[in-house]
Amino acid sequence: MTRPVVALLSDLGLRDHYVAAIKSVVIASAPEAHLIDISHEIAPGDVIEAGYVLAAAWRDLPPATVVIAVVDPGVGSERRGIAIHAHGRMAVGPDNGVLELVSRGATDGEVVELTVRALWRHPVSPVFHGRDVFAPVAARLAAGARLHQVGDAIDAIVPYPVRAPQKRPDGGVAGHIIHVDRFGNVVTDISRDLLPRGRFTVELGETTVARHVSYYAEATKDEIVSLVNSAGYLELAMGNVRASERLSVRRVELVEVHPG
Amino acid sequence: MTRPVVALLSDLGLRDHYVAAIKSVVIASAPEAHLIDISHEIAPGDVIEAGYVLAAAWRDLPPATVVIAVVDPGVGSERRGIAIHAHGRMAVGPDNGVLELVSRGATDGEVVELTVRALWRHPVSPVFHGRDVFAPVAARLAAGARLHQVGDAIDAIVPYPVRAPQKRPDGGVAGHIIHVDRFGNVVTDISRDLLPRGRFTVELGETTVARHVSYYAEATKDEIVSLVNSAGYLELAMGNVRASERLSVRRVELVEVHPG
Amino acid sequence: MTRPVVALLSDLGLRDHYVAAIKSVVIASAPEAHLIDISHEIAPGDVIEAGYVLAAAWRDLPPATVVIAVVDPGVGSERRGIAIHAHGRMAVGPDNGVLELVSRGATDGEVVELTVRALWRHPVSPVFHGRDVFAPVAARLAAGARLHQVGDAIDAIVPYPVRAPQKRPDGGVAGHIIHVDRFGNVVTDISRDLLPRGRFTVELGETTVARHVSYYAEATKDEIVSLVNSAGYLELAMGNVRASERLSVRRVELVEVHPG
Repeated sequence: MTRPVVALLSDLGLRDHYVAAIKSVVIASAPEAHLIDISHEIAPGDVIEAGYVLAAAWRDLPPATVVIAVVDPGVGSERRGIAIHAHGRMAVGPDNGVLELVSRGATDGEVVELTVRALWRHPVSPVFHGRDVFAPVAARLAAGARLHQVGDAIDAIVPYPVRAPQKRPDGGVAGHIIHVDRFGNVVTDISRDLLPRGRFTVELGETTVARHVSYYAEATKDEIVSLVNSAGYLELAMGNVRASERLSVRRVELVEVHPG
Repeated sequence: MTRPVVALLSDLGLRDHYVAAIKSVVIASAPEAHLIDISHEIAPGDVIEAGYVLAAAWRDLPPATVVIAVVDPGVGSERRGIAIHAHGRMAVGPDNGVLELVSRGATDGEVVELTVRALWRHPVSPVFHGRDVFAPVAARLAAGARLHQVGDAIDAIVPYPVRAPQKRPDGGVAGHIIHVDRFGNVVTDISRDLLPRGRFTVELGETTVARHVSYYAEATKDEIVSLVNSAGYLELAMGNVRASERLSVRRVELVEVHPG
Repeated sequence: MTRPVVALLSDLGLRDHYVAAIKSVVIASAPEAHLIDISHEIAPGDVIEAGYVLAAAWRDLPPATVVIAVVDPGVGSERRGIAIHAHGRMAVGPDNGVLELVSRGATDGEVVELTVRALWRHPVSPVFHGRDVFAPVAARLAAGARLHQVGDAIDAIVPYPVRAPQKRPDGGVAGHIIHVDRFGNVVTDISRDLLPRGRFTVELGETTVARHVSYYAEATKDEIVSLVNSAGYLELAMGNVRASERLSVRRVELVEVHPG
């Protein structure tokens, strides 16, 4: 029998005790669970970064993994708590856009608003639903509960704050920069299946990138190249230099892919 | 049957191998244990920060958790190693003040000096008792040993370096800033039960904070508010700004709460 | 029965999803495994730092631990993937020098090139062998496979980039600075067994360090001392000051130990 997996994504950082508090609640009610940290270094309140990092990890997570997503500047206010099911994984978190990207295109999609207060940890701190609401609900889902046992079905959730990439009539595509990774690679929201079949160039501001490669070591030191990263998204990279410094990109900046 | 939980708190950082060495020792002798990292990013040697972070996590940790606390600049010298039991959890670490805050007010309190050398890992490195003394002792406690099996009872331990908050005759209270968290929230050592019943103001240096709220999103962008954080301590926060930058606080600075 | 232990060492950082992707692959095929993070904060592509941190942890890791080492700037190129066995532990990673230091002096040494593609995760991303090659192979080794079941024996691997320390006829030794740890301690590649029996001085650039101590608290604030760290290597340290800042060392700088 497989052990349930609970994965964590947050902007809580690793210096304070917050992540340990969440893990304690999960372990207390699901002691057999495996805990995986996706990231706790999301910039505070940054739903765009969090949504991308979650999407990049999503299909690598073991099937039936339950993610606790705590990027939640609106905690305590009217924003809803939700749980979603999509592509064989689940997630629990605030309804602020962070969970929408991973739910796209799911044939198994399901969303509930968290309403079954009996599952929560009381008294609920108005500043830490990650510990008092999302963690106990996630532990319950990890132990085998179905979504409808933790909340009421809803139709729509708050969308990811970046508009989806748009295919162009000429076979090109327009998307956005949504992340810069540790290595300075500049990641777009354009997934592999949206790229033109043959040759293409990538335009970002005044820079045109004409060479598409398979791996980083193909780039010469001063060359900017494009490649498909390990999560399936188009990105811009350089040899030993951080592409993000050379390009001085702003996040959510427009990127265009032109065939030919 | 529940799995034992061993939690770690240190200033060892995540770049070196030190934390892995401690975990290896625990796992080798308690393979069924769950390991939880509270923090390894305590500023080097900072007993005040470590003591607060531990206290903030303490009652969230699963009952019977054993904490290994390695904030230990005096390692190798005459400072004692101790193990404590308080409020249903245990901790092992140096007797330098880091474990005193969590032991306050415990009806189940117990303290021993670590003296049973047969439990230690030999040869003991004079610079890493975290690995060679505290970890094997913690593993033994996690496996069910009692405190008196790892050391000799002692009466007093080194106090936490910050004087406890003082109630005032008018119902107010005087305490200190003891932590700034990842979000720039400025945390005091004044716990919820010490606050006046009705309205109050908070004074920090030349700043007076008159609005007490329940959650962060209640603060307007440029407004400093007070609230009770998820660990039960009074803190100062702002809307989208880091309160710590606006207030330019020094740690262990005096904070006063005035009723009315 | 002991649980298998899989340990991770990388330059992937903790902000992106990369480490979670590797752990997901391990857990999916070895759900009973214990995962230990050695470090993910190795400077990008820094084989010298990675090799030292791995060597420092190696003999503390539980016997039969399998390490996944992902410091791999050449991923996708012609560099080989390898697995090694040495001193009772195993490691899987790129053949770029990162795994050579730990394999020195092993009487149980064994090395294979990873060639059994049936064990890998397909399609293999050309930019993330950590997830698609090393992780599934490590999971297989953790589950009990032998090295010859994951690859073909080879004779030599790429050496660690720093030349081994040299004993001198007068009993001295010449080595190098290979690491600066979180506390600013300046670590050499000179292990305890290479040090002269009696008194000695340590020379680094224009600095001569004459006092060798057992633990950090022996150093006065402005004094530079030498000591043997908890991994058995000679290092330079100061009292409350970071030795690395006072000495302004460059890594791979020459260090000489003179008897007397």
